[in-house]
Amino acid sequence: MSDGDRDPQDSKPDNEASDADRRDFLKLTLATGVGAASAVAGIAHVRGAKAADVEHKTPHVPPGELDDYYGLWSGGQSGEVRIMGIPSMRVLKRIPVFNKDAAYGWGTTNFSKKLLKGKDSGDTHHAHMSYSNGTYDGKYAFVNDKAQARLARIRLDYMEVDAITSLPHCQGTHGIFPSRNKIDGVYCNSEYRIPIPNDGRDLENPEKYVALHTCVDAESMEVRWQVMVDGNLDLCATDYDGRYSMACSYNSEGGVVIGEMMAADRDYLTIFNLAEIEKAVKAGKGTTIGDSKIPVLDGRGEKNPYTLYIPVPKSPHGVNVDPTGKYAICSGKLSPTCSVVSIDKIADAFAGKIKPRDCVLAEPEVGLGPLHTAFDNRGNAYTSIFIDSVVTKWNIAKAIAGENPVIQKLDINYQVGHINASMSETKEADGQWVISLNKFSKDRFLPVGPFHAENEQLIDISGSEMKLVHDGAAHPEPHDALIVRRDIIRPRKIWDPKDGKFALEHALAKKAGVAVGDTKVVRNGNKVTAVMISVAPAYSLTEIHAKQGDEVTVIISNRDNVEDLCHGFCVSHHDVSVGVAPQETVSVTFEVPNKGVFWYYCPWFCHALHLEMRGRLIVS
Amino acid sequence: MSDGDRDPQDSKPDNEASDADRRDFLKLTLATGVGAASAVAGIAHVRGAKAADVEHKTPHVPPGELDDYYGLWSGGQSGEVRIMGIPSMRVLKRIPVFNKDAAYGWGTTNFSKKLLKGKDSGDTHHAHMSYSNGTYDGKYAFVNDKAQARLARIRLDYMEVDAITSLPHCQGTHGIFPSRNKIDGVYCNSEYRIPIPNDGRDLENPEKYVALHTCVDAESMEVRWQVMVDGNLDLCATDYDGRYSMACSYNSEGGVVIGEMMAADRDYLTIFNLAEIEKAVKAGKGTTIGDSKIPVLDGRGEKNPYTLYIPVPKSPHGVNVDPTGKYAICSGKLSPTCSVVSIDKIADAFAGKIKPRDCVLAEPEVGLGPLHTAFDNRGNAYTSIFIDSVVTKWNIAKAIAGENPVIQKLDINYQVGHINASMSETKEADGQWVISLNKFSKDRFLPVGPFHAENEQLIDISGSEMKLVHDGAAHPEPHDALIVRRDIIRPRKIWDPKDGKFALEHALAKKAGVAVGDTKVVRNGNKVTAVMISVAPAYSLTEIHAKQGDEVTVIISNRDNVEDLCHGFCVSHHDVSVGVAPQETVSVTFEVPNKGVFWYYCPWFCHALHLEMRGRLIVS
Repeated sequence: MSDGDRDPQDSKPDNEASDADRRDFLKLTLATGVGAASAVAGIAHVRGAKAADVEHKTPHVPPGELDDYYGLWSGGQSGEVRIMGIPSMRVLKRIPVFNKDAAYGWGTTNFSKKLLKGKDSGDTHHAHMSYSNGTYDGKYAFVNDKAQARLARIRLDYMEVDAITSLPHCQGTHGIFPSRNKIDGVYCNSEYRIPIPNDGRDLENPEKYVALHTCVDAESMEVRWQVMVDGNLDLCATDYDGRYSMACSYNSEGGVVIGEMMAADRDYLTIFNLAEIEKAVKAGKGTTIGDSKIPVLDGRGEKNPYTLYIPVPKSPHGVNVDPTGKYAICSGKLSPTCSVVSIDKIADAFAGKIKPRDCVLAEPEVGLGPLHTAFDNRGNAYTSIFIDSVVTKWNIAKAIAGENPVIQKLDINYQVGHINASMSETKEADGQWVISLNKFSKDRFLPVGPFHAENEQLIDISGSEMKLVHDGAAHPEPHDALIVRRDIIRPRKIWDPKDGKFALEHALAKKAGVAVGDTKVVRNGNKVTAVMISVAPAYSLTEIHAKQGDEVTVIISNRDNVEDLCHGFCVSHHDVSVGVAPQETVSVTFEVPNKGVFWYYCPWFCHALHLEMRGRLIVS
Repeated sequence: MSDGDRDPQDSKPDNEASDADRRDFLKLTLATGVGAASAVAGIAHVRGAKAADVEHKTPHVPPGELDDYYGLWSGGQSGEVRIMGIPSMRVLKRIPVFNKDAAYGWGTTNFSKKLLKGKDSGDTHHAHMSYSNGTYDGKYAFVNDKAQARLARIRLDYMEVDAITSLPHCQGTHGIFPSRNKIDGVYCNSEYRIPIPNDGRDLENPEKYVALHTCVDAESMEVRWQVMVDGNLDLCATDYDGRYSMACSYNSEGGVVIGEMMAADRDYLTIFNLAEIEKAVKAGKGTTIGDSKIPVLDGRGEKNPYTLYIPVPKSPHGVNVDPTGKYAICSGKLSPTCSVVSIDKIADAFAGKIKPRDCVLAEPEVGLGPLHTAFDNRGNAYTSIFIDSVVTKWNIAKAIAGENPVIQKLDINYQVGHINASMSETKEADGQWVISLNKFSKDRFLPVGPFHAENEQLIDISGSEMKLVHDGAAHPEPHDALIVRRDIIRPRKIWDPKDGKFALEHALAKKAGVAVGDTKVVRNGNKVTAVMISVAPAYSLTEIHAKQGDEVTVIISNRDNVEDLCHGFCVSHHDVSVGVAPQETVSVTFEVPNKGVFWYYCPWFCHALHLEMRGRLIVS
């Protein structure tokens, strides 16, 4: 099939299915997987409201005005995190995390190379902010890499990654969530079961494979402990009191191919009893795996003090705790239901006073393929429904009371994955905006080739009805998102030159016998260190002499003290390009394999004489 | 200085200069460079109009509606190109060019590795589309890399790079422009003068350094010829008839440090006589440099048939040809003037009938630091004024008549570099929108740390007054941009599996004794080739067996034939992640240094059972 010749302006291209047909294609391909689950009937679908049709909040922020909220977006397989302005849906910053970024030189500077350890791709699934007392404190953000089982931390004062931790014995690290009562642990789910240690043993014995739940210390970023579990861990959440972390768990069958993974009608919400785990670790009850010194506890099976397996239908995906802290909502994925789990009852279930399943208060039908749930401040839940391509608004209290809780279903375009609402994951949920992160955009934007833009849709939830106000186009993939009041985030605009980040550059300079801020070129054997400053429109060094085969380290400090006056350092033909923000120091190390004159220049437009801001690397 | 503690909501933070002060800081730092140039007096500045103040076109495109124009954006030091929707200012696609992109696997697939040759940064300055008969034909886009002197081509049917050419003997390849009469040449300016060949000779003899103007064949992407010139070549343009390419040229002094580069009061608009050059090359008059076989002509000095040096004041930056094809406008940078050059007179100047300077029809004062000029369809020019931070609208005919041509100055925020208007660089300029690509955003967005977003501002020019309608936040750097009517660009939504792009994968498969589309794993020595297809939600191979130390090549074809149904292939812990669009085939080659089970999975959400779309790489 080729449709390259049709006019992209056609709003209903004749070679495309109708809107209804388009929604159906995934249902059809899913028939065997989902079974006979029926959609909730009798609910009026409200079509995405157009700006002219109804009164609602506009997403357009006029020139010169500021957005009301920050968005924190995990960038999926792009490996980055995005800072958004809400409601304008403008990308205010791409924070490179596991990916290379040529603009800032992430993956090229010595600082970032040290963190990335030679890798430059990743799959950022879930970005969460650090909490104090049940709400965001603006200090850190955490984000996982599903591809290489890593956890990264972003310091929000400078909006830059400052630590990356590899999680031992893990693969497919999927859901993460930090403690909500204080800055304490970050809990990480590994999805894939593998041999432990993964050193060639048990290759063909899947029954011996194990998945782990890992606690990383949020301040030191060191791994504290791990717990072995049954099943594949998916999304993660914590309660508001520091008692539990929890994980939706699928493939309780332990299958390795798709048919095996969907056999059982129920899988689990797995609860981790943090006090019991910390106590056991302190008491030395952990074992270790392979060369790792991390204590590991065995939380497999129904009889252990560390884990509680609450049966919920079927291959549940998202777990989200409501702003009251009372309920964990599990979204069924292969069941059209959400399970409302009472967090208050968990202690009794751990104590054996009630059965695990007794923690489930309600299981309302919300639509076909429920994945994630967000909350307002009025007791309502907003669940993303993948297969139906809707957002379902439903009332938690009504569900518990056994009434039909569904208030509205809003069509989205198309196939929503994650959903979130402003301040939804805190005690300060404010019921203003929902963001729907959709996996398909299809005809919603001008065509741009076979890889379409993703569609992130902004929904006004401040009134009695949800109203779609904006289609945002996104680079693959806007995986998950938070929306945070802007007063909580207070980034600095100029670097503190005394910041600990620069320890690396001070050490490099000291080793070479110079100091950061000098203007000097020194040689030690075949290692050349050039240290300089930049003040628009000039580098303090206009010549660096080296010999063919040298290893050159450039340490450059931007001495401009004016907000937004960034410089950079780019060496022609050497694949070296980095940015250096006001009062920042960066270093970069590279080989000079060839003789010749190689101009270095400032790639960040800084001055009317920016083009003249350059110098020569002269290699003899 | 640190301002991390102030409330980012303050619209006038007390630690910042006032708006007027802020505009002045660059003027002060420039005093010596610019001299006593005075700003044009007596023009009312129109402050950026707010949505509520005046009647104008809105940039907001309601959900489900499409943009009117495509934007083609060069991404500066990010190394990418962006496809925008105008007027919504949404980024519809990031096209990785010289950078790595983890989402698509650009820099990881064998196809992209072959083009990038081990480099993964670049500095995309100018993106231009191919022309036929004076307007865009929608076939190609071309973009340069200033950092490594390369020219890339994007095929617009799939919006993907298909060729990258290295320009020999060039450094700082800056301005480029394709032929406007037909798909023919792409003309590339190298900015930096270097020894030729740059093999260690003449390191300390800057007087022997040379810069080159290079013609690349737009279809074959091979270098056709080069011309040696005086000075540093900056921006590039072509006329509408295939007679001339041209370059603003600064540093006619041949200086190597900033003071030397600004000594002379006049530099040049350098005109290349394409017929004379092609004739000389055909006649074998070219020499060669070093190992290169590219014919090189000597266009240095005033007496040669290839180049004409038209004196213009001072370190001119941009050169833009108006839609009538009659005038080339040079923007003075260090002079507050634009020079209006008659293209019709150039032939007489080449013939010696008039002096080069006689081609200059007018030199109106437009403001302090003019850089680039765009056009409407009513005879008006829009010049970006860097130091004054304004866009100046002026009338070309009035300037030629000696009248004051300035119609309006619009404040921008802040320090505009490139500017362009809808269809401005074609005969079909339509006078609807101007885009102002600004180097500083300062207080226009929520703060995101020391590296601010750039500010790309959209201006409605359809009425008698320019009106600012939107502040767009951009990843560094929105260097240059085109705005193109959407009917011109007709991308395909699904790959043609017979496309020539897949020759590489067919060859790899053939070499291994398999075929694209097979489901097989074959071994040749320590090379393992796994060929498979993907159909949501499964790979046809759920196991790949390899031995420690093998080199594994995976060839994967997405057999889904549904628009937007993309898959990917990501191998845990192997830094391998690629996308594969509907009906596309990609290949990736990687080492397996460690024993163990490594799950591979689909990182592109494709189905409700997407998480289950995976398999095991089993390394024994």
